[in-house]
Amino acid sequence: MADKPQNSAGLRGQSAGSTALCTVGKTGSGLTYRGFDIKELAEKAKFEEVAFLLLKGKLPNQTELDDYIAKLKSLRGLPSALKAVLEEIPKDAHPMDVMRTGTSMLGNLETEESFGEQDDVADRLLAVLPSIICYWYRFTHDGVRIKTETDDASVGGHFLHMLRGEPASELHARVMNVSLILYAEHEFNASTFTARVCASTLSDMHSCVTGAIGSLRGPLHGGANEAAMAMIENWSSPEEAEREMLGMLERKEKIMGFGHAIYRESDPRNAIIKHWSKKLADDVGDKVLYPVSERCEAVMWREKKLFCNADFFHASAYHFMGIPTKLFTPIFVMSRLTGWAAHVFEQRENNRIIRPSADYTGPEKSEWVPIEDRD
Amino acid sequence: MADKPQNSAGLRGQSAGSTALCTVGKTGSGLTYRGFDIKELAEKAKFEEVAFLLLKGKLPNQTELDDYIAKLKSLRGLPSALKAVLEEIPKDAHPMDVMRTGTSMLGNLETEESFGEQDDVADRLLAVLPSIICYWYRFTHDGVRIKTETDDASVGGHFLHMLRGEPASELHARVMNVSLILYAEHEFNASTFTARVCASTLSDMHSCVTGAIGSLRGPLHGGANEAAMAMIENWSSPEEAEREMLGMLERKEKIMGFGHAIYRESDPRNAIIKHWSKKLADDVGDKVLYPVSERCEAVMWREKKLFCNADFFHASAYHFMGIPTKLFTPIFVMSRLTGWAAHVFEQRENNRIIRPSADYTGPEKSEWVPIEDRD
Repeated sequence: MADKPQNSAGLRGQSAGSTALCTVGKTGSGLTYRGFDIKELAEKAKFEEVAFLLLKGKLPNQTELDDYIAKLKSLRGLPSALKAVLEEIPKDAHPMDVMRTGTSMLGNLETEESFGEQDDVADRLLAVLPSIICYWYRFTHDGVRIKTETDDASVGGHFLHMLRGEPASELHARVMNVSLILYAEHEFNASTFTARVCASTLSDMHSCVTGAIGSLRGPLHGGANEAAMAMIENWSSPEEAEREMLGMLERKEKIMGFGHAIYRESDPRNAIIKHWSKKLADDVGDKVLYPVSERCEAVMWREKKLFCNADFFHASAYHFMGIPTKLFTPIFVMSRLTGWAAHVFEQRENNRIIRPSADYTGPEKSEWVPIEDRD
Repeated sequence: MADKPQNSAGLRGQSAGSTALCTVGKTGSGLTYRGFDIKELAEKAKFEEVAFLLLKGKLPNQTELDDYIAKLKSLRGLPSALKAVLEEIPKDAHPMDVMRTGTSMLGNLETEESFGEQDDVADRLLAVLPSIICYWYRFTHDGVRIKTETDDASVGGHFLHMLRGEPASELHARVMNVSLILYAEHEFNASTFTARVCASTLSDMHSCVTGAIGSLRGPLHGGANEAAMAMIENWSSPEEAEREMLGMLERKEKIMGFGHAIYRESDPRNAIIKHWSKKLADDVGDKVLYPVSERCEAVMWREKKLFCNADFFHASAYHFMGIPTKLFTPIFVMSRLTGWAAHVFEQRENNRIIRPSADYTGPEKSEWVPIEDRD
């Protein structure tokens, strides 16, 4: 067990199934959802439109989109038993544990009784996940019991409204919209694969999503934007950022928000979120965080040929909107729920239980020794 | 997506990592834990001894075992916030959803802050899972708030004591001991693989176990013993059982508790639990359920050359001990927690994030159509 991982470890490059949802690093653009280029979606679509695309298989027409947005708005309320559970979770809990527990609890109250209910269960989760995290956050941090049923038109606007107690500006709602689109889907990443393994036992949607949240919680998966924020907020000028980064590189410290397991030359999501981070920096009159972030990008490219991934400029963007750092990964959940659920649908449609083999490295045969004779 | 699954689907036969914990179908006996034959363990060991073997890497000596049992006994209490959460879960909830939610909630209250805590977190879960399910069950079904800290020497005795309100007989405690040993570990089954995928993101133990519970909940994985019980309890004689079974076979209905994805000729756990089911049948003076079960075994072998797996005689055995059918799979959780946690330890020790690829079956390139022009 002390051996180094093999190159084939982690199933890298091995196919574990098929999907019509997403390509990563296969086309010029680098990322497509059902064949649509991520750049085009981020520029032209609403997040709810992308959710519809992933979950229902096509872009909605105007009536379908209006109906879908209306449906999501109607599903924002929290059952009283779920609120009671959220109130039992301490203020210092890990917000991803809150998301995981809230989703699991909802499964007790609104159990998916058959796969015929899967569309409704997915829509409900899409609508209610922002309510779960904001209800807990505001209750434990501000001592208020918020009303989660707002009239905001978008998932992102709803989230910001609940978090800050006032409707989001047009700019902020727009950035949230783009951010949720960028994080919505990414093929067989570890959390999505967790959801598919769970789905392959024909378990229920809440189990699949609960498991996926648990995997996204890991620092090798979600959380890179939180780590990037924790780093850049220490620095008060590009010069300081460059000096400190060079020191980190020399000490071979891990720097989060750069490079990617699949992309080799760039992450197509970076230019998009960087553009919006700049707009937000101008909006708040920032003279530090954005220049620091740009310098980090330049230094990592110059020194290591490592590019910013989707997470790096998300850190400053979220920060400029006043979002507490520890809520960054829960936003990822609100978005990726669409990809997870769409993958569960696919797995169910053409299922075989996911049950790989293992290379055995233990003893061939162990001899039983009576307990009184053991060392 | 409507294609039939490929033979290579479900990663069958593909190695997804290495393990020193278990062999399935590789030796004469068919199942070993760290090289020990399952027959010998079921005959000679305490479940707590097997848990120690899986989690700490060797059989304990008498002092180590005494200390371990004392430690587990000291860890049976439920935090008040966890009790409050369990009281919010309705009586008609799926008991696996209760296990999943209870485990997830515990992660908020007793978060694993570093991998240095992993042994203690695993031991705590091993000790407290029976408390979680019994507290909820007795509160919602009997209207009582039970004390979960009992003086019972074993995990199985503790469970039966809480469930029924009186200490278990020697025979019942013995059967629970055997049952928990039989279900403890089974290589890269879907729930264990879920735990390993989650662990590969370096997430926390509660996330890994929560995800594994969600996968075990699926009817293709856990739950076969519940399905077997639901079938055999309908029949009042071996003759009726044979007649009905033949009808089910003719109608090609799914019959649970027979055959196995890995074992080809027999499941080594069957003879063991069958032996104890017979003893319990004699103990309660049963003249129906055990003979019905035996006839089912004979018919399935004669007609289909299918053997009983571990689940089939577990149904009658648990039933003879007065355990409600819907709690059968939660017992599986109490046992398999040991295997899950030991696999998480292994994954962490030699980790690479588990991130397979997918075969893309979607559109090459989709053209954006403005919403007003869509059908």
